[in-house]
This record gives sequence, structure tokens and C-alpha cells, in this order.
Amino acid sequence: MNGAESLVRTLLASKVEVCFTNPGTSEMHFVAALDTVPGMRCVLGLFEGVVTGAADGYARMADRPAATLLHLGPGLANGLANLHNARKARSPVVNIVGEHAIHHRGYETPLASDLEGIARPVSHWFRMSGDARSVAGDAAEAVRQARSGAGKVATLALPADTAWNEADGPAAPREPPPRGKADPGAISQAVAAIRSGKRVTLMMSGRALREPCLGLAARIAAATGVRLLSQQSNARVERGAGRVVVPRVPYPVDQALAALADIDVLLLLGANPPASFFAYPGKPSMMTSPGCETLRVAGPDDDLEHALRWLADELGATAAAPLANDAICMTPAQPGRLTAEAVMQSVAAMLPEQAILCDESVSSGRALFRYTDGSAPHDYLQLTGGAIGEGLPMATGAAIACPDRKVVSLEGDGSGMYTLQALWTQARERLDVVTVVLANRGYRILQGELKGVGVENPGERAKRMLAVEDPELDWVALARGMGVEAAATDTAEGFNDLLAAALRKKGPFLIEAQLP
Amino acid sequence: MNGAESLVRTLLASKVEVCFTNPGTSEMHFVAALDTVPGMRCVLGLFEGVVTGAADGYARMADRPAATLLHLGPGLANGLANLHNARKARSPVVNIVGEHAIHHRGYETPLASDLEGIARPVSHWFRMSGDARSVAGDAAEAVRQARSGAGKVATLALPADTAWNEADGPAAPREPPPRGKADPGAISQAVAAIRSGKRVTLMMSGRALREPCLGLAARIAAATGVRLLSQQSNARVERGAGRVVVPRVPYPVDQALAALADIDVLLLLGANPPASFFAYPGKPSMMTSPGCETLRVAGPDDDLEHALRWLADELGATAAAPLANDAICMTPAQPGRLTAEAVMQSVAAMLPEQAILCDESVSSGRALFRYTDGSAPHDYLQLTGGAIGEGLPMATGAAIACPDRKVVSLEGDGSGMYTLQALWTQARERLDVVTVVLANRGYRILQGELKGVGVENPGERAKRMLAVEDPELDWVALARGMGVEAAATDTAEGFNDLLAAALRKKGPFLIEAQLP
Repeated sequence: MNGAESLVRTLLASKVEVCFTNPGTSEMHFVAALDTVPGMRCVLGLFEGVVTGAADGYARMADRPAATLLHLGPGLANGLANLHNARKARSPVVNIVGEHAIHHRGYETPLASDLEGIARPVSHWFRMSGDARSVAGDAAEAVRQARSGAGKVATLALPADTAWNEADGPAAPREPPPRGKADPGAISQAVAAIRSGKRVTLMMSGRALREPCLGLAARIAAATGVRLLSQQSNARVERGAGRVVVPRVPYPVDQALAALADIDVLLLLGANPPASFFAYPGKPSMMTSPGCETLRVAGPDDDLEHALRWLADELGATAAAPLANDAICMTPAQPGRLTAEAVMQSVAAMLPEQAILCDESVSSGRALFRYTDGSAPHDYLQLTGGAIGEGLPMATGAAIACPDRKVVSLEGDGSGMYTLQALWTQARERLDVVTVVLANRGYRILQGELKGVGVENPGERAKRMLAVEDPELDWVALARGMGVEAAATDTAEGFNDLLAAALRKKGPFLIEAQLP
Repeated sequence: MNGAESLVRTLLASKVEVCFTNPGTSEMHFVAALDTVPGMRCVLGLFEGVVTGAADGYARMADRPAATLLHLGPGLANGLANLHNARKARSPVVNIVGEHAIHHRGYETPLASDLEGIARPVSHWFRMSGDARSVAGDAAEAVRQARSGAGKVATLALPADTAWNEADGPAAPREPPPRGKADPGAISQAVAAIRSGKRVTLMMSGRALREPCLGLAARIAAATGVRLLSQQSNARVERGAGRVVVPRVPYPVDQALAALADIDVLLLLGANPPASFFAYPGKPSMMTSPGCETLRVAGPDDDLEHALRWLADELGATAAAPLANDAICMTPAQPGRLTAEAVMQSVAAMLPEQAILCDESVSSGRALFRYTDGSAPHDYLQLTGGAIGEGLPMATGAAIACPDRKVVSLEGDGSGMYTLQALWTQARERLDVVTVVLANRGYRILQGELKGVGVENPGERAKRMLAVEDPELDWVALARGMGVEAAATDTAEGFNDLLAAALRKKGPFLIEAQLP
């Protein structure tokens, strides 16, 4: 078998069963191998940002990596922003990037590039295979690396001749190292702080926001009065009825400062210290008050379940009744002009059981998180690296990981335009995704930020740079152009009807929610 | 004034008058400055690949740089593929990339990234400003760097606080160093080779493919029998009636080997040694025959006009009658089923005087170059870095540089999907661009490449990965969704009518040419 076939067999043996791809000439041997070796689901994306964002969404829901198959440095570059997001999410991803044949790499040709230089900023691990016989072992290592810690981005560059030359058989799967355990000293300090009577908050992210960790945290909170909080951006949170509500650090700086003001001790469990998204003139970078003591109980790559069980045991909280979620379920928005709040209210009301809610609503969705406290139990996925253009691809990958669950994808009209090509893949693969585009015809969040830098009355140029109008986008036409059924509405009752119908059917559907 | 205002004023003083942008929060001060300081045309792109591709197209036609304004590492990353293309084109480009405020950079936040690491693979020059007062000087240096040699990609990262803090005034423009001159020894060797009776070919690229260089080359060829050839990919070629025909090195390896087989001495004038695009098993990387001697007369950044005048003088060719272009103008395709050849024939026949022909037709356009030998005089722009997704943005930038010239943009249906968002900018800016999408519903070039690796009968998976169907794209809907008028046709007569109408009117129009 050639190197390409040894790669595919190795990936399958390592339980990598989905390949998102946008291939080029240097990947033709891999495509041929994917053709002859059964077992790998191949999903075509028409732009590499779709491929990498889908790999991220897939990993968050499947808890294991998919592979991406990309074409040379520029192909990888197109997918970089969503690999940045995946890296921040700690999603396991295995990138397979075709490179020029080894003997061809010294020549100045159009597609010659510094592939490693392009890969390094987003990859925890990078390797370029030296020959065809190394490919299988390198691939097994890439999967092992991707699966280590909470999850990593592993990039394997394969020169074209390593694909076409003879190889040995596939390589056996390699177990990743076990996740690190919390330091006993940190656990003691945390317990002491909680027992001291100080105002303690437990800030969580990663696996801590899913069962069984959520239940453990809920018991600790009920037993001790510790407050629960999550990072502003998290890869996946289990939410809704029956799940304890864990508020997020707010995005706006002043709200974040207020939310963290009355904390004496902040315990980090898989979370980063709460710095603001951006710096602003005259505002601090860190959102905790100067007197707050921050203690890292466990890092993002550590075994968070182990740490929480340990804490619960030490605090005698294991048998406690967990903090209950007493949020009520929203009712659908009342008839009238459609607004962002109305969309969020109706989505929260109608969200089906076990839905996967993908949120790239940006400014329009500020109320969503709170409104869905009482929704049917669901998983909530959001942007983790701040690079918009993740939503539609992430929803695509999540749907492939969980074909029996409804995906509801909330998307800004500005942010949706970065990787709208994902809609074609949703049609191609018949994915059960409802996309709601929040069409307010502008980068609304930036209009607020412009005010924030003191521009109260923007002139023509500034307004034009932050408005997505003249012309207005027609998302129904865009969706239909890519094979996705779609409809638009500017009333709440219209929205409720369209959403209900889309939730009842299977397959992709897009609703353009026309907002003021 | 703050750093942002000093930046804008410096750019304007350095004759940078167009800014293509996709801004984010960290760029709000720049947007505010662009608002208050008159003179900069600001063009919004809904995806950064549009922004950087437009900057490339603009530079090729304007012979000076535009600025791009991008948001942090991920925003730059989204534009990387077309900066790769711009770098290979040697287009002058000034990237202004907002970065986190200096004091914020040490924190782990979602958008924290290795901005320099992302920039380096595509930038000839990179700098991050250290404070607000340095911004003006750094910006003047960035423009100088961009304008050096034939053209360079200069990337200036500006932490947000360098934008909002107080600065001094703008910096004065800085002259780039003069372009290098050809080495006298190389000129002598070239002259000797030409006079020796050996079979000599002059291979050109860059400015050598425009006047006055083309005329000089044509005289040299007429006077000495030297054959003229160009690189496979060039940034801009002046072609059509009255211009000497300079054939290109063919893309397919076997054709390239044949075209270069009977050359004893290959003289490079601004061109790279002719290596193939990709390596193939059993084929050489270099397309010249083993016995061919390759001599570099002048490099891509050298003064090619100076070198050609020198050669012409030495050879006594200055007064010679130039090699004539006796190609006839095509007639429009005959009525019948529309094919790729028919499209190319009609485009060649109907191309208006001084049109700018942007060619990302990939496999469909193989006949175009030859067919347009006899077209009305026009400029021909093509992909230079092999990273598809350049065409629509490049056409956008070219139209902004030359508002009085018709832009004809030929685009593959697969390649068009990478940066289709450019169509919105064409509508926004009322650009005079006719886009012809060659809809053959597949990555046709890859279907050929798959055969090339021995897969004669691809299975389902392979076919699915290389077909852009199920669903078929509806380019009329996509264009209209972005505010561009459009129509589709599958007959030659239909195509002729639509093209004629689009050429008569001003403003963007898209024709979906439905091919077999």
C-alpha cells in the first residue's frame, strides 16, 4: 500500500472516522485512498474555514477528533481562523495538509509557501513526514497528540511523494497520556478558602460545564454557598431544565467588573483568569477587583471531574442536594414587530429536547443565555476564539457528530458572511440544522464600540464601514443559491411559525429574521 | 492628534489613497480617524480574503499600494491566501493590522494570537509599533517597503493603545531605494548567447510584460530571432491587438516540457526558472531540458526596462521594426450548446478596448489566452500564487483602481466560492465588473488530476469530493443575494446576448455560464 492508504487505515484504526476536506492536486492520492478504504465519512466544504470550523464543532460534540484534509500552505491559511477558535476551545483536531513533494520543495513555484510557519500559530503540535513509511506512525502520533489534555490541534504535513510512494501497513493507535491531576496543595487551599467564610466563587470552563461535573459543582454550591460562574467563552455547556444554572462572566467590561466585584477568592477550575476581551482606555485588563485572590485549582488540560470529586469529598458535599435550576421556560414571543429579544424568547421557548444550540448571534443574542436557563435540556456551543465565521461551520460539524439531535444555529448577518459556504455542505449532507440569521444590516456590535471610543456622531465613512447595507443582503436568496430552503420574516408570529415548521422537519432550513 | 490620525495622514501623504477594510473592535480608532480625515477611499469587504485580494488587484493596476485594515491575528489569517498571491505577484500592499493594546497582550484572552507568526509567511516586512508616537514613522516605512523592488507585502501591526494615545504629526513620505540594475556580466553573456547562433529564448515576467518593455522585447525578437516566452503565472500582461504575443509556459507538465525542449539558452528577465506547479511521480521538477543553460539577466525586483534597453542597444535592435502581432480577432461563438470554448471565443471577440481581463477560469479557460491574442488591447491579470479565491476580489480592486475601464472577470464555480463575498463589495461600490461564472459543477481540474494519479474509475466518495453538485449552486441567486444583477444561460447565443448587454451597461453583472 502507498503512504496515503497507510494514512487512512491508521486514522480509522485510531477511531478517526470523519474527514472534512477541501482537497487540491497534492491530495489526490489521499482522495484515492479514501475512495478505496471504506469507513471514513468524507465531507466536502467549499472553503477551508468551513472545513476547520466543522472539525471543531464535530469534536466538541463527539469528544474525539475528526481529520481535516487541506491543500498546501494557502489552503491551511484559509482555515486558520477556525483552528484558532478550535485551539481556544481545546477541541481535538487532526489536520492533514498536503505539501509539495520533498524534491520539489526547493523550487520557487506559485504554491511554494512556509507551511510550518503558517501552521505553528494555531497548532499545539506540528510535524512534516519525511517519507512514505513514516506516514502511518506520524498519523498515529497526530491523533494521540490531538487527544491529549482536553484536546489539541495537531497538524501533520504530508509531502505529495510520501502519499504516492510505498509504505508499510497502518500504525496501531497510541493512547494519550492521562490528564493531569489537581495539585493537593491547591485543593487544600480551595477547601480552606471555602470554609473560611470569605466570599468564594468557583469559575469553571471545559468539561466542568458538563455532567457529571455540573452535578458535583451544584452539590458543592448547595452545601457551602460557593457561587458558580463560568468563563465568558466556553466550548460546550450542558444547560436547560434539570441542569444547574452557571452564569457567565459578562462580555461588556463594566458589567464584568460589577459581576466580579464582590469576590474575595476566585477558584479557577479549567478556566483562565478573567481578563476582558479587549482593552479599553482607562479600564483595567483584569476583571477581578484588586483585593481578590485568584487560585488555580486545576488547569484546562487537567482532569476536572477528578478535581471536583475531590473537592466535593473534602467538603462533605457529595451527598448534598444539588443547587436546583428553578428557571421557568420562556413562552414564545407575542405577535408584533420582530426584535432580537423576540427571537431569543421564541428560540428559548421552542428549543427541542437535546438540541444543540450554536450561538454566533454576537450583539443580537445578549438575552439568549439567560432566556435558555429554563429551556428543554440542550447543549450550548459558542465562539471561543473571538474569530467570527465559526457559527455556520461549527453547526455543520455538530450535526454530523450527532445526527439524531436538532441543531439550532443563531448567526449574525455580518458574521455569517465569513463562511456562508457551510450552508452548501449542510444541504449536501442533508444535515438537520435550523439557521436563524439575525439581519440587522450592520456590524451592530461595532457601532456600539465606535461610540465607546467617543465617536457619538459617526460621519458617512464610518457609518458605511459598519453597515451591511446598500445593498442589503438577501439571505433567502443566498441560502437557496446553496440548496438550503429558506424564508424571511419581520414579525414575531411569522418567526414562531417558521421556527415551529423548521423544528418539525428534518434537514437544513434558514430563517432570515429581519430586525429593526 | 492620536496615533490613528497620524497613521491616516501619513498614508495619505505617502499617496496611499484607498483602504480596503474589515475592521473589528481594536480598529475603531482607525475608523474614527478615517472618518474625520478626508481623502482616503474606504472600501468594506465582508471577508478579509476580499480585502487582501482587492488590495492585490488594485496594486497591479494602480502601480502603487492600497492599505488593508484588518482585525488582529485571525482577521489577518483570513486574508493570508490572497496575501500569498500578492507576494508572488510582487504587488505592493500595506497591511495595517490592529493588535491588542500593549498592556493587554500578556493575558490569555480569546483573541490573543501570535500575530507576527501569522504575518511572517506572507510578508516581506513586518513591524509592530511600540507606542503612539512611532506609528507615523512606522507607517511611512511600511509604504516605503511596499514600494521597494517590484513591490512587496509590508505588514504593520498596531496595538490598540498606539491608536488611541497622543502622537505627533504625520511622517513625511520616504522614497524607496532605486531598483537594482542588471549585472554587466550577465548582459554580456546574454548578448553573446544571442549572437552565437544557439537557440535562445527570453523568458519574462513582471514589468517586462508591459510597455515600454514589450516593445523593446519585440524589437529584440525581430532583430535576432530570439524567441519570447513568459512565466506560467504573471501579475499583469498587456495583450491584444498591437501588442506582441508572448506565449506562456504551459501549465500541464508534458506540454511545458515540449514547449521548452528545443532551447539551448534560457534567459530569465524578471522570471523564475520554469519549475512545474506540482511534482508528479516520474516527472522532472524543472521543465527545461537537461542540456539547457539557464542565465539570469535580471531578477524580479530589478529594473527590467533598463535591462531590456541595454540588451536592445547592445544588439543594435533599438531601431528594428518590432515583431508584429498578426493574430486575428475572434468572432463570437456560433449558436448552439454553450461550452467553455464558446465562452472563451465570445469573450475574446467582444472584449472592449482597455478592458481588464481577470482570469480565474482554471480548467475551463485553457483556450482563453490564445483566443485573446487578437482581441482589442487589454490588460490580463491572473492568479500568481496558485491559491484560488483571488479572482473576484482581484477584479474588485482592479475596478477601483481603474474606474473608467471595464473589468471582465472569469471565474470557476468552485474557485468562486472561496471569496464570493466580493460580489457584495462590487454592488456596494457600483463597480463596472462583468463576472462570468463557468458552471461545470465540479473541481474539473482535480477530476483530471485524479486520473493523473491512476484513478481511472473513481468511486462514489472520490466523485463526491470533486463534484460541486447535489446540490448545484445557483449563482444567479447568490449574486442577487449580494445585490448584483445576474442571469444564467446554457446556449452560446444566450451568452452572447447577456455579455453584450453587460458590456454596454456600467455596474456589476454576473453571468452564470452553464457548461456541460
